[in-house]
Amino acid sequence: MNRTIVALATPPGIGGLAVIRISGDDAIEIADKVFKGKKPLKECSTHTIHYGNIESQGFIIDKITASIFREPHSYTGENVVEFGCHGGQLVAEQIINLLLDVGAHFAGPGEFTRRAFLNGKLDLAQVEAVADIIHSNTVAGVKTAARQLNGNFTKRLKDLRTELLDIAGLLELELDFSDEGIELIPKEKIKEKIIKAIDFSNKLADSYLSSEIMRSGFFVGIVGYPNSGKSTLFNRLIEKDRAIVSPIPGTTRDYLEESLFIKGITIRLFDTAGLRSTSDIIEIEGIKIVDSILKQSNLILVINDITYGREHSDSLINKISLKHPTTKILIAHNKIDLTNFNFDDTDTEIFISAFKNIGLENLKYRIYDIAKNSIERESDILINQRHANLLKQASLSLSTALESLNNNMENEFIAIDIRKAVKILGELTGETWNEEVLDHIFSRFCIGK
Amino acid sequence: MNRTIVALATPPGIGGLAVIRISGDDAIEIADKVFKGKKPLKECSTHTIHYGNIESQGFIIDKITASIFREPHSYTGENVVEFGCHGGQLVAEQIINLLLDVGAHFAGPGEFTRRAFLNGKLDLAQVEAVADIIHSNTVAGVKTAARQLNGNFTKRLKDLRTELLDIAGLLELELDFSDEGIELIPKEKIKEKIIKAIDFSNKLADSYLSSEIMRSGFFVGIVGYPNSGKSTLFNRLIEKDRAIVSPIPGTTRDYLEESLFIKGITIRLFDTAGLRSTSDIIEIEGIKIVDSILKQSNLILVINDITYGREHSDSLINKISLKHPTTKILIAHNKIDLTNFNFDDTDTEIFISAFKNIGLENLKYRIYDIAKNSIERESDILINQRHANLLKQASLSLSTALESLNNNMENEFIAIDIRKAVKILGELTGETWNEEVLDHIFSRFCIGK
Repeated sequence: MNRTIVALATPPGIGGLAVIRISGDDAIEIADKVFKGKKPLKECSTHTIHYGNIESQGFIIDKITASIFREPHSYTGENVVEFGCHGGQLVAEQIINLLLDVGAHFAGPGEFTRRAFLNGKLDLAQVEAVADIIHSNTVAGVKTAARQLNGNFTKRLKDLRTELLDIAGLLELELDFSDEGIELIPKEKIKEKIIKAIDFSNKLADSYLSSEIMRSGFFVGIVGYPNSGKSTLFNRLIEKDRAIVSPIPGTTRDYLEESLFIKGITIRLFDTAGLRSTSDIIEIEGIKIVDSILKQSNLILVINDITYGREHSDSLINKISLKHPTTKILIAHNKIDLTNFNFDDTDTEIFISAFKNIGLENLKYRIYDIAKNSIERESDILINQRHANLLKQASLSLSTALESLNNNMENEFIAIDIRKAVKILGELTGETWNEEVLDHIFSRFCIGK
Repeated sequence: MNRTIVALATPPGIGGLAVIRISGDDAIEIADKVFKGKKPLKECSTHTIHYGNIESQGFIIDKITASIFREPHSYTGENVVEFGCHGGQLVAEQIINLLLDVGAHFAGPGEFTRRAFLNGKLDLAQVEAVADIIHSNTVAGVKTAARQLNGNFTKRLKDLRTELLDIAGLLELELDFSDEGIELIPKEKIKEKIIKAIDFSNKLADSYLSSEIMRSGFFVGIVGYPNSGKSTLFNRLIEKDRAIVSPIPGTTRDYLEESLFIKGITIRLFDTAGLRSTSDIIEIEGIKIVDSILKQSNLILVINDITYGREHSDSLINKISLKHPTTKILIAHNKIDLTNFNFDDTDTEIFISAFKNIGLENLKYRIYDIAKNSIERESDILINQRHANLLKQASLSLSTALESLNNNMENEFIAIDIRKAVKILGELTGETWNEEVLDHIFSRFCIGK
């Protein structure tokens, strides 16, 4: 018997409509305790919608719709009632409180989807796709996640597992005929298949970074000496006045984040405090944040005040590349309107005037190009850290199997490592799982999903 | 023929579920162009829910539910389809774009509710209650709006209008018998009824301020000299670290807003920059904002650093009371942990230590008490500016009628002013309306409602 859970399924905030989701064996009975329609919901068919009031102590709380989904034909596979009430958080809060009063329990993060998984409505790769659809910051990410939700990842993994299981089975079967020296499948054929499986696993694991960019966007940390024009540039790029701009160095006190959407890719710009040694307490607080931003950045954009010369920021750039050696750095020489020189953009340097709006489109599309090149185009699967780890483990087991094969080891040993890989791949889709893995996955979910 | 409109009905942002609403004559046909379920929606009955995919160019965009409401049994009174898709803004955006491509139009603010009004599903007082339910920041406000949505305001206005129409009718009828000197209804009785109607209108109009507090919350502007501990207090009251606190005066550079919810009343706290004359450019920018915050405040909370003495902030308080003479002022003497004196709270002064967490519950409930006393308890109607203006006009017309009655003027004149009041009251519920009034009302609505 599953206790009945309730949560707001729609985002909090101002809107026309809020939806409260109730799921569990008693969902319909509990809903009936607060809902007054033409007839009780327990007498209504599945997949139907009904108007009615939510009443408490003789007062109407709201006029709503109630949608009924009888098990197993619901998102969770349990009885589900969805209340569509007026938007604005307070109405929904009151209704949820009423439901808690009459026996429902507040749902934990992802608890609806967890039940969907446990009831066999979704596999783990699909569950993770649900989280990605909701949280992805880029259109490319959402599209890929939707394909994954439809089961393409699962299908490819299942095909691979079946193939590996077949190989292991044949290797084990050969053992029975080992005296006769019968080879059920040529060793070269097996090698070929294992190498293909290793390639597949490695390639998927390697697309993790690309998936992360699809999921969260391409992070650009903007740094530079104080008063080099970082905030002015930031405002120009996002086309509004978000950063407080002033001629006093050190105005940006923590950091600001805004997103640019270019052709399906989300560029996330982080404007930071000016980097300098300072005795100003707040400023130092800010600079600690700068470092953590640079660590997360896919691209570091250094703004150099060209009026002090093209090499003015070189020591800053050196320090950054020492600390973040694998991160791309792009230098934007700012304030070219105040100089008489004519410079040509290079691969790593671009010349702009944030104030006079010169070269900014160039800069924007240069950032976009770098972002686009960081995303693998063919991938139709979103890899997360869990997937990447499992795929690497599977690849490792398969490599051991391959080595044993090359060394003409007993079929037994080879089959053991292949079966190990199969088990690991099973964890990707949830064919094998444990509570810890589930807890980890569902911790990413919001309440109400 | 109504063109078909579409919009996101749920709030933007991260959540499990987003709902897209489509309404209009062609809503079902248009939905069918992007929705692939077991059978076309046009073959499905009203008030039923169906699973299916949204597909574009052979790719799945999302797996969703579609709910059908056939006219006139829908929110708008037209054909309505609601798509329940995965949360996160990008999925919904893509689906809306697909719908726009196949003939839907993007809905304007409040366009669904406007159609509900024009199709006779809601009267204007109910329409405004919908906006209040969504936008109210207090539980009290939402509860009152829900009662208004259920028609109690409309009913009381209709009763009043009927009574006034009866009086006007009788007065006019008497004219036919004027030669005979027949009095169909005693003048004293008419006077009594008109006075009652004037009282009713005035009382409702006067509850506007109280309604505003129920709707938007009770605004508390926190001011004080720099470093008096405003931000520390603010953080303590909201119980998290929202304001950057530092020992350097002038740290809070614009303003911060957070809400406290106490027994159904929303207290909105505004932490402002320190008030002082300054040559620091950013600081001055902040202080301009302080003034506009104080103008909106229902209560001004002055934080005084008691270590400088109980009268330390008096000149500031004087300035504030000169500029905002009708606004209540409460003085919180802070840092009492650093003094050796023992003070007793008074009606306007309260002694605290934000840092040591002394007296803060006292302060919180003092603010709550002041807020509670500003809300009229009996009112079960939320008055907005439009209502208040109309009620005042109606009251004025009725006063003129009363004066005419007292001066023994012809029944004709009296009846004209009564009928004028009736017409004005009709505008409250929308029995009489014009486009301008509708535009004004629906400009308050969000898109998707």
